[in-house]
Parts: sequence; structure tokens; C-alpha cells
Amino acid sequence: ELPSDLNDGQADKGEYPHFMLKEIYEQPEALTNAMRGRLHEADATAHFGGLNLTAAQLRQVERIIITGCGTSYYAGLVGEYLIEDLARLPVEVEYASELRYRHPPIDPQTILLAITQSGETADTLAALREANRRGQTTLAICNVVGSSIAREAHGGVYLHAGPEIGVASTKAFTAQCLVLTLLALYLGRLRHLSVSQGQRILRELQALPEAVRQALQCHDSVKTLAEKYSHATNMLYLGRQYLYPVALEGALKLKEISYIHAEGYPAAEMKHGPIALVDEQTPSVFLVPSGPVFDKVLANMQEIKARGGPIIAITSGNEAEVAAIADDVIAVPAVAEYLQPIVTVIPLQLLAYEMALLRGCDVDRPRNLAKSVTVE
Amino acid sequence: ELPSDLNDGQADKGEYPHFMLKEIYEQPEALTNAMRGRLHEADATAHFGGLNLTAAQLRQVERIIITGCGTSYYAGLVGEYLIEDLARLPVEVEYASELRYRHPPIDPQTILLAITQSGETADTLAALREANRRGQTTLAICNVVGSSIAREAHGGVYLHAGPEIGVASTKAFTAQCLVLTLLALYLGRLRHLSVSQGQRILRELQALPEAVRQALQCHDSVKTLAEKYSHATNMLYLGRQYLYPVALEGALKLKEISYIHAEGYPAAEMKHGPIALVDEQTPSVFLVPSGPVFDKVLANMQEIKARGGPIIAITSGNEAEVAAIADDVIAVPAVAEYLQPIVTVIPLQLLAYEMALLRGCDVDRPRNLAKSVTVE
Repeated sequence: ELPSDLNDGQADKGEYPHFMLKEIYEQPEALTNAMRGRLHEADATAHFGGLNLTAAQLRQVERIIITGCGTSYYAGLVGEYLIEDLARLPVEVEYASELRYRHPPIDPQTILLAITQSGETADTLAALREANRRGQTTLAICNVVGSSIAREAHGGVYLHAGPEIGVASTKAFTAQCLVLTLLALYLGRLRHLSVSQGQRILRELQALPEAVRQALQCHDSVKTLAEKYSHATNMLYLGRQYLYPVALEGALKLKEISYIHAEGYPAAEMKHGPIALVDEQTPSVFLVPSGPVFDKVLANMQEIKARGGPIIAITSGNEAEVAAIADDVIAVPAVAEYLQPIVTVIPLQLLAYEMALLRGCDVDRPRNLAKSVTVE
Repeated sequence: ELPSDLNDGQADKGEYPHFMLKEIYEQPEALTNAMRGRLHEADATAHFGGLNLTAAQLRQVERIIITGCGTSYYAGLVGEYLIEDLARLPVEVEYASELRYRHPPIDPQTILLAITQSGETADTLAALREANRRGQTTLAICNVVGSSIAREAHGGVYLHAGPEIGVASTKAFTAQCLVLTLLALYLGRLRHLSVSQGQRILRELQALPEAVRQALQCHDSVKTLAEKYSHATNMLYLGRQYLYPVALEGALKLKEISYIHAEGYPAAEMKHGPIALVDEQTPSVFLVPSGPVFDKVLANMQEIKARGGPIIAITSGNEAEVAAIADDVIAVPAVAEYLQPIVTVIPLQLLAYEMALLRGCDVDRPRNLAKSVTVE
């Protein structure tokens, strides 16, 4: 565990009132750092120094189990979509606390990928050790250099996101999503992605930090939104496909620092039960991407609207169409579908931050929580 | 969709004030019916009439994708533990509404298993059709004979649970868990389960309806509990391993009919964020099985206790040890670990029912919900 007093002393909040806000604003730079030296133009792929697996070995991999806790687990769910989509490899995501006591069927072609900011998360470390004990190949994505998990995994990728002090993880999440994208690109290029597909992805990655910078410009609108909704006691966060894990992460941010009971769901799953919760006092945050599910999410929004639930929409799609249904709309830049999680989570981080401030919560030291959980 | 007026007319609530309560009490019989003719003593396995796959074909299966919506999805999560545990086959569970728009990597050795009570759930039907279109082998577990999904799957197993009229699914869930157990036993016996392991499972299955009958005797204690907690606005449901999906299902029941915002979580995941929600007004329902995770769940309970959260425990373990931490304890019969979901969900169904009654909700016709969702 990072001794937080020490870090508070050493680290500098600069112009920002809280570490969390500083780290939210550091994201364009953190993403640039996470990419630096890892984009390989000539081969139209990503490359890494520390995977410790040859291309031949990685081509043998038939399945990946991703594990983590909290925000890192949700980054893992984004990773599932990324790797299945770009590399066509089946991925299973497991909570580390569950995986460590399970005995799932695993063959030699299955690798374990552990995701952790601190590299010291006790449940994730235990799951990794259990996999190592069984002779599985293990990889880690972590931020803290030389941490236990970084040392004990067979190989891995560092985030290079810089120290994260705020208890609610922000820049580590987006950097984790980015590194998972690079890994999916690399695995995809070892298999079926063409040179031109690889080149397109590299171009889209290079434009990402600027898109995140633009997304941060929603801050004033989000502040207004927070004033409108800060008295909510329950909220729902809804997304589909790549944005379903982002709905979970957005809800977790709000839980962690504002203590509002927010819950994430796949948008279309609402009608199978949770929609019973919807009334005038329960706002829903819809993530509405441009692209193939745009119309589907609008239809899900209509269902909530019909039950009188207030709707906040975060969209990279047609704003006018969204505004015709939603009570409030925040626009984010349109990016490729697989990069939408990174751009779309920005207003959700800011919303949690602003709501928590308005409710008088200590955003950098939320009640009941520690930065990294080094006990079981 | 079942025309609910017609069914209300035809079906008989008997001595019960609501269909939901009747169906809760029908569970010992529904489980007996779901097993009838399917236990094969001589071969120490289960067998089914309609799988339409030979033993040789099933031995070729390398992975199973389970899909469903709402309660059926949670039964699928129980199925993941069952099949991975008893048959050592990797299982992935996907929300049908997500799966239908995804393009996951699937090879010819992967089969799709759709779970649905009505056999008409639009999202599940669409996911099944998409799999059929790709030439995947598809199986279905459903209750309504001759339904669309029963007809369009290559093979399947009926629940034989009798008509379910209550909008909140109860007996269909336990029957789904049971059929998944039979399927896991059958797949396990085609692979590595020994005769004596098969025989032990058959004996445990035969004792199950009586264990459920005993579990129903908690009704009076649950009623007292409901009176104590009926004014809660937020609740957490926490379980590990086989009881994690049951925590999700218990929370869903409460959401659906009492409109209390209840959320399910893996018990050990709390400390990675959601524990920030815990205060004196937020009760947690802990599922505490006898067996390997008993001590671990007690440790998770201690964390909530230390933050002042009221604790309700449902346990088949040592009651005195649980009562030393929990505010209220409901005992359920001890059964084999893989059967714990079926026994443990009983008090959760009754709790949702009693809480809803006390809050003046219409349990058979909750707001915003339909029995089967035949639109996207």
C-alpha cells in the first residue's frame, strides 16, 4: 500500500484543489505517456518491452482470463470487448476475489492477465499466484513499477500514468483501457488484422489525447448538471457494448466519492427488472455512442422516459436526436467505437467529482476506502 | 407473450393471496417435476430426451456460452459455476441483449445455451437466431413447451415447472438452476466424473426438494425481518462463489417488486469501492454458506459491521458464529455447495415478497414490468 500521508506530502496538487481533479486533467498526458515508444509504424502494430513472450508463443494463446478488482475489473471488461473484437480471442473476465478461490478449467493455451494500478491489490496478487502455481502463463498491466504483481507475473506492461493519489481511480482507468487497446492491436496483428487496419488504429490512437482534451471541456456543463442532480439518492448508469463497462465505472465513481447509490446496467437489460426502480426521483445516465447501437440506446431511453425518469445523456452521436428525449445532454468527441470508453468516462469522472463536492464529501479521502486494498 | 389477463383467469391462486407466493411454495414440487425421469441410477448420471446431441458430439464441446436476460441470466451465472465445477468445461455468460449485437469469436466446438422461462424473450431469441445463422449448435432451457426458443434451438431441456404467472420469477429460477445441475452432471459424467461421484450427486439431488421444503419454514422469521427493514431505501446483497449469482438474484427480486434499490456484489469486492455506501441506513444481506468460504464471508461481514451497517445473514453454516456478527440471522438447511443457490434463494424470495407487501406494492403486477419481454 502506498503510505498516503507520505505521498500527500511528496505529491503536488499544483493548481488543483484535489488530487482527483488533477489526475482527471492529467489524462491526455497520461495517455500520451502510455503510448510513447509503443506504436510501431513500420509494422502497423504496437510493441512492448516486457511481455517476455515471443510472437510465436502469443500465437498459441487460445483464451485469455482477465482479472482485477474495482475499477481495474471494469477496465478488464473493456479489455474483453477490445481483445475479442480486434484479436478474435475469447476472453473471460473474473473478479480476482472470486477467481482466487475457484478452480476454473484452464488449459496450457489460456493465459491470465491481471490488471491493477498499485500492483499490490491482495485479491489480484493471490489470483496471480494461484495461476503461477498451476503453471499458467501470467501477464500484468500495472502502474507502480517494481510492485509485487509486476515482479511475480511472467511479463507485463506498465501504464506509465504517473502516481495516482486520489482514492477514486481516474487516469489509471483510461491508461488501462489504452494499454489493453495496444495489446489487442498487437495480438490482432499477430493473427488476422491487416496492415491497413493496423495503420488506421495507429492513426486513431494518435488522435486520442486530443479527443480527451476536448472531452474535458465539458466540465462547465457537467458542473451545471451536478447542481441540478446533487440531491439524488439513487441513480442508474446505462450503456451497451463498449460503453456497458463504462456505465459500471461511472456508477462506481459516484458511489465511491458521493455515496449516492448508483448502479450500472446494460441499457437493454433494464426492462428485465431494474426498470421497476424508475420514477421521477431516479435519474438515469445514458451513454449514447454514435455508431451501430445509437438507435438502440435511444429506444432504451424512450422506455425510461415513458416511466417519468429524468435522463442525462452523454453522447458522441447526433445531439439533436438525443436532446429530443433526454433532459440534459453532454457531448463528447466522436472517436472509433473501441476508443469510446476512454472519451466517454471523462464526463462521468467529472460528474462524480462535482456531485461529491456539492454534497460536502472529501473526494480525495472518501469514507471507508483505502487507495489500494492490500488485505483480503 | 403470455396474455396475462387470460392466464389470471385460467390459473388458480388456491389458498395463496398472490401467484408469486403460490409459486414460491410450489418449488419443492417443481424441483421434483424437473428431475422426474431424468435421474439415471444405473449410469449414475442424468439424461434428457431432447438434447438432440449424441454423447460423442457432446464430448467434442470445448466451451459453452450461456445467454439470457434478468433472472434467467443469473441462473446462467450459477450454471457457469456448475458446469466449470462438475464438467470442467469453460463457460462464458453473456447478457442476451449484448450478445445479439456482438460478434464474439466462436469456434465449432463452442455451443450456445439459451435460458428463458417463457421461450419468447425477444433479446434471447435474437441471440439464438444469430448463433443459428452462424451455424453454431444451440441448446435451450425453457419452461413453456412449444415456445419460439424451444422450437428454434437444436435441442433443449424443459423445466416442467408448471405455468409461472407472477412477474417476479421464482420457481423458474430454481428449476433452471436444477436443470443446469443435471446438465453439468451429464457433461461431467461424459468426461471425468466417476461413478461414485455421480452416485453422490444423485443422492444429493434426491434430497433437495425436502431441503427446500425446510427452507420455506423460515417464512415467519423472514416476515419479522421484513417488518424491521421495510423502510430501507438502499440495500446490498453479498455472496461469494456459488452464492454470488444468488446475491444478484435476491437484489433483483427486491428491486422488481418492492422498488427498493438493492444491488448484488461479490462479498469481497465491496472493499474495492461500494463499501463507501455503507452507513446505519443501508442494510447488507450476506449469504454465508457452510464450507470453504464460510470464514471468508465472516471476514467480509466484519468489514461492514465496522462501518456501522446493519447485517442480515442467511446461513447454512454455524449459526452462533454468524450471530456474533450479524444483527439478524436466517438459517437454511446445509446442502452440497453446488445446490446452495437453490436453497439460499428461498428466504430472499420471501423477503422481497414480504417487504413489497409492507410497502403496499402489487407483487403480482409490479410497476413498469411485463412477465415476458417480447420487445427489444
